[in-house]
Amino acid sequence: MTRVTASLSVSLDGFSSGPHQSEELPFGEGVGERLHRWMFEAGDDHAVEIAANLAPDAFIMGRNMFGPVRGEWADSDWRGWWGTEPPFHSPVFVLTHHPREMLIMEGGTTFTFVTDGIEAALELAVNVSGKHGTVGVAGGASTINQYLAADLIDELRLQIVPIVVGAGDRFTDGLDHFGLAPVAARHHRLATHITYRRLR
Amino acid sequence: MTRVTASLSVSLDGFSSGPHQSEELPFGEGVGERLHRWMFEAGDDHAVEIAANLAPDAFIMGRNMFGPVRGEWADSDWRGWWGTEPPFHSPVFVLTHHPREMLIMEGGTTFTFVTDGIEAALELAVNVSGKHGTVGVAGGASTINQYLAADLIDELRLQIVPIVVGAGDRFTDGLDHFGLAPVAARHHRLATHITYRRLR
Repeated sequence: MTRVTASLSVSLDGFSSGPHQSEELPFGEGVGERLHRWMFEAGDDHAVEIAANLAPDAFIMGRNMFGPVRGEWADSDWRGWWGTEPPFHSPVFVLTHHPREMLIMEGGTTFTFVTDGIEAALELAVNVSGKHGTVGVAGGASTINQYLAADLIDELRLQIVPIVVGAGDRFTDGLDHFGLAPVAARHHRLATHITYRRLR
Repeated sequence: MTRVTASLSVSLDGFSSGPHQSEELPFGEGVGERLHRWMFEAGDDHAVEIAANLAPDAFIMGRNMFGPVRGEWADSDWRGWWGTEPPFHSPVFVLTHHPREMLIMEGGTTFTFVTDGIEAALELAVNVSGKHGTVGVAGGASTINQYLAADLIDELRLQIVPIVVGAGDRFTDGLDHFGLAPVAARHHRLATHITYRRLR
């Protein structure tokens, strides 16, 4: 069966972004790069984790992770945060309420905009990943929250960053169950990595 | 120098207790023993962690951890949750706004009620622990929060339990900094143990 994974950097108080995300502040107010220093400043120490995050055969993300544009796409020429050649090199399905034509980027990344919900997006991603493939739910917190609530995540990798954010989006908000258990943990000065897998 | 440690079980969303703690619900509504199953159901797997929690030469705790009585002690005969011989076997300093005479329990535990704040309690605990001793801030979340805010904790051990609690007390509430970094992590199906130490 296709495996569904997710990965998220969270503060000690569980936030993955601060309030008021924007083009200038992709992770919201008061956060900057603090939740991702483990990746930006210590990439060599995290080669395994970074590779795992980019390994899936297809990705799903929320539109807030895709970019700061809200509402109708209209004439937006926003093509994601990642330049002309995004690091995904695979199909990416972007959850949105507003239709938009597929974007074909360099290096094999495509952005397909899905307007009929998380299960439809997952079905599309599973189809391109194949029976032995992996679908990566790339974020943000609210998207991972929805897939966890629907019991659709097989493996969640958290990077617990030793900072307090205080306000913003949490993957746990409103979640009334969590059917995963820790199967691995390792620490680094900039983050503690915990892997959770679905209880069988 | 005397070392100050703290230990706390927290949910994925950072709570150490639910709302409305009472004599019937020591950890508040909706929590039960779920945050402490690692200790109650898998004590053998956690002999090291449990021993570390009980090792300090003196303890400090908030009055909500000591018991469900609020306000004046008056004629309360509450002597803690732990029966006639509590597991501390050391002096315990209980933070409270209301004076009460010291309680002498079996097995070397004493409960001394301190009304002049967290620094005064720490000074008393350091005095009985000695220069090479350890003071344990036993909880709850609000007490650990206050000592963290004052930069008085050298080592914090978190047990991150894979459940979502949703409401209650968090050690991170209102904390605007966290000067500790992870130095150890290990997983168990019932909790992930992370040790944080003060950055030097």
